[in-house]
Amino acid sequence: MPLVQVDLPRALFDQKAVEIGRELQAAFVEAACVPPNDKFQIFRPRDAGEIVFDPTYDEVDRRDLMIIQILMVHHYPVDQKRALYANMVNRLVEIGIRKEDILIAVTENGFEDWYAGQLYGK
Amino acid sequence: MPLVQVDLPRALFDQKAVEIGRELQAAFVEAACVPPNDKFQIFRPRDAGEIVFDPTYDEVDRRDLMIIQILMVHHYPVDQKRALYANMVNRLVEIGIRKEDILIAVTENGFEDWYAGQLYGK
Amino acid sequence: MPLVQVDLPRALFDQKAVEIGRELQAAFVEAACVPPNDKFQIFRPRDAGEIVFDPTYDEVDRRDLMIIQILMVHHYPVDQKRALYANMVNRLVEIGIRKEDILIAVTENGFEDWYAGQLYGK
Repeated sequence: MPLVQVDLPRALFDQKAVEIGRELQAAFVEAACVPPNDKFQIFRPRDAGEIVFDPTYDEVDRRDLMIIQILMVHHYPVDQKRALYANMVNRLVEIGIRKEDILIAVTENGFEDWYAGQLYGK
Repeated sequence: MPLVQVDLPRALFDQKAVEIGRELQAAFVEAACVPPNDKFQIFRPRDAGEIVFDPTYDEVDRRDLMIIQILMVHHYPVDQKRALYANMVNRLVEIGIRKEDILIAVTENGFEDWYAGQLYGK
Repeated sequence: MPLVQVDLPRALFDQKAVEIGRELQAAFVEAACVPPNDKFQIFRPRDAGEIVFDPTYDEVDRRDLMIIQILMVHHYPVDQKRALYANMVNRLVEIGIRKEDILIAVTENGFEDWYAGQLYGK
């Protein structure tokens, strides 16, 4: 049950939110063995001045940043996480997003930290 | 100091945000011994296309999803967490929300990870 | 790579978002040795009824709450975290924000939980 939260420029949301959501989920399916319908995403379009960054950090030429936060169960080895990021980035590049304009941050919790529409054991 | 963040359809926010906030806090008081006035909530109304999910995951008939994220101190045993989710869900059902339309995700931190209006030790 | 997320009243955003962002980053630089250009912030202006709190909790006179969430690598000792909060609060007070109107909550992850515009090892 990954929960994906994307803060992104409103123009990018208007143009490509459906494709972005589809490609991020495809990356989870391919790189993290998540079932295709285990898809929970929040898009938060942001207006001018709401996403603030320094374009020069780490010598990356950032221009129009989108920020992808993933909340998921602590479960995956580091190599698999890195493969997941690479898969996401490659797919986003294919739909016209610059790899420099992507920030991904993962937070982890446990299986007991989720309720998804039914009470377990009932 | 639980911090509750609710991304929900704008129509639901307009109709029931006050009741939702009241019932979520009542659940914390009843199931997690949180003081009634230890209440910190963010509502983020979402427009069309901003909450994306597959209605079929785990054979739950989702229609109009609200996503409740809770940030709280690592402190509660698993059984108490489950009782908290059940309490929340039962209360939301009582105000007309389908239990299938609720997603809850918990993230935990420590006591040292909070500042709430005063510097401790001052 | 701290990621700072600020949910705040829209009026405060309109008046002071640039200063708030600058001062929060200055606190990271001064109190947590973060490079000045390692700056990633999301501002989420909130309308009436979207930030909900009890003004009396812990005997703090809250009036117009802003909520600062920080996602950063688990790395800092507790004393340094507290110094970071104090630095932030003092700087925000200097630009006219009441210290009672600030909530800070930290969530931590690991170095392997970030992608920032380039795939490491490539």
